[in-house]
Amino acid sequence: MPSALEDLRERLAGIEDLRTLASLASWDQMVMMPPRGAGARAEQAATLGRLVHDRFTDPETARLLDAAAATVDLADPDDDGAALVRVTRRDFDKAVRVPGELRAEMARAAALGHEAWARAREDDDFAAFLPALERNLDLVRRYAACFPDAANPYDPLLDDYEPGATAAEVSARFDEVRAGLVPLIAAITERGEVLDGSPLEGDFDVGAQRALVGRVLRELGTDDEGWRLDVAVHPFATGLGRDDVRITTRYEVARPATALYGAIHEFGHGLYERQVASELQRSPLGSGVSLGIHESQSRLWENVVGRSLPFSAWLAPRLAEAFPDAFAALDTDTLHRAVNRVAPSLVRVEADEATYPLHIVLRFEIERDLLAGNLAPRELPARWNAGMHDLLGVEVPDDRLGVLQDVHWSEGLVGYFPTYLLGTAIAAQLWEAVLRDLPTVEEGLAAGEFAPLRDWLGDRIHRHGRKLLPAELLERATGSPLDVAPYLRYLNRKYGALYGLAAT
Amino acid sequence: MPSALEDLRERLAGIEDLRTLASLASWDQMVMMPPRGAGARAEQAATLGRLVHDRFTDPETARLLDAAAATVDLADPDDDGAALVRVTRRDFDKAVRVPGELRAEMARAAALGHEAWARAREDDDFAAFLPALERNLDLVRRYAACFPDAANPYDPLLDDYEPGATAAEVSARFDEVRAGLVPLIAAITERGEVLDGSPLEGDFDVGAQRALVGRVLRELGTDDEGWRLDVAVHPFATGLGRDDVRITTRYEVARPATALYGAIHEFGHGLYERQVASELQRSPLGSGVSLGIHESQSRLWENVVGRSLPFSAWLAPRLAEAFPDAFAALDTDTLHRAVNRVAPSLVRVEADEATYPLHIVLRFEIERDLLAGNLAPRELPARWNAGMHDLLGVEVPDDRLGVLQDVHWSEGLVGYFPTYLLGTAIAAQLWEAVLRDLPTVEEGLAAGEFAPLRDWLGDRIHRHGRKLLPAELLERATGSPLDVAPYLRYLNRKYGALYGLAAT
Repeated sequence: MPSALEDLRERLAGIEDLRTLASLASWDQMVMMPPRGAGARAEQAATLGRLVHDRFTDPETARLLDAAAATVDLADPDDDGAALVRVTRRDFDKAVRVPGELRAEMARAAALGHEAWARAREDDDFAAFLPALERNLDLVRRYAACFPDAANPYDPLLDDYEPGATAAEVSARFDEVRAGLVPLIAAITERGEVLDGSPLEGDFDVGAQRALVGRVLRELGTDDEGWRLDVAVHPFATGLGRDDVRITTRYEVARPATALYGAIHEFGHGLYERQVASELQRSPLGSGVSLGIHESQSRLWENVVGRSLPFSAWLAPRLAEAFPDAFAALDTDTLHRAVNRVAPSLVRVEADEATYPLHIVLRFEIERDLLAGNLAPRELPARWNAGMHDLLGVEVPDDRLGVLQDVHWSEGLVGYFPTYLLGTAIAAQLWEAVLRDLPTVEEGLAAGEFAPLRDWLGDRIHRHGRKLLPAELLERATGSPLDVAPYLRYLNRKYGALYGLAAT
Repeated sequence: MPSALEDLRERLAGIEDLRTLASLASWDQMVMMPPRGAGARAEQAATLGRLVHDRFTDPETARLLDAAAATVDLADPDDDGAALVRVTRRDFDKAVRVPGELRAEMARAAALGHEAWARAREDDDFAAFLPALERNLDLVRRYAACFPDAANPYDPLLDDYEPGATAAEVSARFDEVRAGLVPLIAAITERGEVLDGSPLEGDFDVGAQRALVGRVLRELGTDDEGWRLDVAVHPFATGLGRDDVRITTRYEVARPATALYGAIHEFGHGLYERQVASELQRSPLGSGVSLGIHESQSRLWENVVGRSLPFSAWLAPRLAEAFPDAFAALDTDTLHRAVNRVAPSLVRVEADEATYPLHIVLRFEIERDLLAGNLAPRELPARWNAGMHDLLGVEVPDDRLGVLQDVHWSEGLVGYFPTYLLGTAIAAQLWEAVLRDLPTVEEGLAAGEFAPLRDWLGDRIHRHGRKLLPAELLERATGSPLDVAPYLRYLNRKYGALYGLAAT
C-alpha cells in the first residue's frame, strides 16, 4: 500500500479507536453504569467527543487525504483505499463546515433538552418543554444553514443519518407509502378483531424468557465468544468492532413476545456489524453505512423473517419447550396470527408492522413544516393530534401519548425519523431480491437454516461497511434504486391473507 | 481561583476523563467483554494510553504548572491548589524522564510476556518463559536507569506504586516482619490442626451466595445508586470517580467464604475511592494515593474487621439466614476459628493472614537480587524453592505452584509486590489508631454499626485523595511513621488467643 494512504489509515485508525471507546462508554451508561455515575460520564463523553472532533478536523487530516487521494483511483467503487479517501473526505467536508462553538451549543442544548423533555413528559406539560424545544430547533436550523448549497435545508440533516438521501426523494416515496397504506389499514380495521394477540399473554418467568431469547439468538447465529445480550430500558445494539457485538432487550412478564422480537430486531443490527469485512475494521469504513440500511436489517429479521409463517413454524415448538404450561398446544397458525395483529394505536414504539409507517410519515411531515417555517413549535400538539386522526383515525388523549412520546426532537435529532421507514421499506425490497436469489429460503426458515440468509446479507450488504453510499449499495444488492412497491406488495399480500381481504 | 491554576485544572480534568475511560475499558475487558473483542480492545487501550501520555507530557502542561505554581504557596500541605501543583509536578517529572520509545517497548514486552507466562504456566515450563522474563527485566532495568539520582535502582520502581517509599526502608521493615513472623508461624504449626475450616465447606448455591454478598455489602455501606458488584476471575475494584465504584468477586460452590471475604476486601478498596473528597474529582488528586494505602483499606476490612471476633458475631446469623440448612447452628466462635486457620502453603493468593507476608518477603528479596545483578533470571526457580523452604517450610513440587504462580514479573511489574505487605502492616497500624480514637468500635462491629469506622477512614485517609504522600498521610492519621510493631502485636495477640500460645 502506498505510504500516504497508509499514513491516512493509521491516523484514522486511532480516531476510530476513540470513537469505539465513546460507544463503549455509551453502552456502559445505558446498560451497566450505576445512576450516580451520570455526571462524571457526561464530562468524559464531552471530553472524548471534543477530542475526536479536533483530531478528525485537524488540517493534518486534510493534508493526508490530499496526499492519499493522489495515489488511488477515486472513481474505483471497489478499491478499499479509494473508498477510504472518498468516504473520509465526505465526512471531513461536512465536519469542518460546522463551527466548534455551534457544535458545543448543540451538545449542551441536547443534554438540557433531554432533561426538560423527560420532566415535561412525566408531567404531561408541553408548555414547560417548549423553550427547550425551540432552542434545539433553532440550533438545528443554524446547523442546516452551514450547508447553503443544499437544495433543501432538510437535506444536510437527513444526510447525517442517511448519506445521499434527499427530502424530495423521501417525500415522494413516503407519499406512495401513505397512499398505499391508508386504504389497507382502513380495510383491515373494517374487518374488526379477526386476529387474537391473547395466546401470547400470561405470566412468564423472566429467567425462562432470558433462556429462550438466548437459545433463539444462538440458533439465528450468535455465540458467546463475540456477542453479549443484556437488558436496557430502550433496547439497542452496539458494535464495538465485528468481534464485540452487544445487543439488548427488555422483558415484560406478561408478554414474552416483547423480549423475543425485540432481541431478533437487535440481532439484525448486530449481525450487520458482525459481518462488516475484517479488513475495514479500525477505519471509518468499518461499520454500517446508514441508519436506514441498518434498520432494514433489524426489520428484515424482526418482521419479514420473524413474523413470517415459516419462522412461526420454527419458533412455535421452541416457545412450547420454554413454557410448556402455556404453549404446549401453540400451533404455527395461532402464533403467526398472534404476532401480526393490526390495531391503530397512539405510540410509535408499540405500533404493529402495518400502522408503524404512518407514525413516521406524520413525524417527517411535521419536521419539514417546522424547518420550512410553516409550523411553529407551539402549534405542535394540535398538528400532531390532527395528523394522528387523519392518518390512523385515533384520538390523542394527552401529549404524553402524543407529541411528547419520542425523545428525538428534545435532543435536536431532526431528519432521524425517516430512516425508520426507509429501513422498513428497504427490508421488503431486499427480501424480494433474497427470494429471487435463494428460492428455497422460506423452507429454510421453517427448518432453522438461517445461514444462507445471513450469508446473502453479508455478501450484498454487510461486508461493504461504509464503502458505498446507501443508494449504490441498495441498487447493487437488488438491481433497482429505492422502491416502495415491494413493501406495499409485501404488506398487501401478508395482511390480505391474514385478514381475508380481496386482492388490491 | 487564580486563572493560571484554573487553566491547569481544566487541562488535567480532560486528561483525567481519558484516564477514567481507560479504567472503564479495562473493567469492561475483565468483566463484560466477549473474548473475541480482546484484539480490538488492545488497540483501543494502546491508542488511549499514548494519547494520555502525550497530552500529559506536552510542554503546555509544564507551562501551566509553572504559571500555576507562582499563584500558590507550594509548602501549604492542605491547600488543594498547592497540592495539585505539587503532585502533578512530581508525576510530570517522572513521566518526562522516560523516552516514549522505551515506554512503547515496555508495553509491547508486557503484552508478549503475559502471553508467554500464561502458556508457560499451563505447561509448567519455566524455560519457555525465560526469554520473555529476561526481556521484561532488562526493560525494567533500563526504566530504572532513567532515574540516575535514585539511591537504589529499586526505588523509582517502588515509587511508581508507593510514592516516596524506598527499598532501604521497606527492607528494614520487612526484616522486622520476617523476624517476628517466622517464630510465630513455627509456634502455630507446632500446635497442629487446632482450628477447623470445614464448618464453612459444603455445597452452596451461587445465587444465594450472591444475595448474601449483596446484603453484607449493603450493610457495610454500599448502595445500588453508585456501586456495582460483578464477577471476575481475578477479583478487583475500580473507581470511575466516587459516584461509580465497581467491585468484583468470584464464587466457589464449595466455599462461600471465598466470595464473601473477597467482596469485603474489594469493598475496602471501593470505599476508599467512594470517600475521596468530591472537590478532588476530575483531577489527578481524585483517587487513592498508593497501592500500599489502598491495600491497607482492603486488608483492614477483610481481615482486621472481617475476621475479627465481633464481626464474626455479626456475620454468623446472616450466614445462617442465607444458608439455614448448613449454618443454622453456626456460632460466632466456630465461624471465627474457621476463617482464621493458619497453614503454610504454596500459593500467595490462597495464603492465610499469618503466612501471607512471608510470600511477599520472598518476592521482594528476589526482586532486589535480580535488580542488583546478584541473581540471574534462570536461577529463579531454585532461589524460589529454597526461599519457600526457608520461610514457610514447604516444598514446591513444580513451577506452576512456585515461581510461575504470579503474573506480575511477566509484565515487568517489579516493585509492586511489597505494597501488598506494606498495606497489610499499615492496616494494623491504622487499627491501633482507630481503637484509640473510637474506643467502642469493636462493640459497634458486633452490632453492625460500621458508620463510625467508615467516617474515621474517610476523614483520616480517604478524603485526602492524592494530596499527601503516603508517609505524610499515615503519620497524620496515626501520629507515627510507618511502624510494623502494631502489626506484629496484632498477629501475636490474635493467634496467641486462637492457638493458645504463650504470650511472646
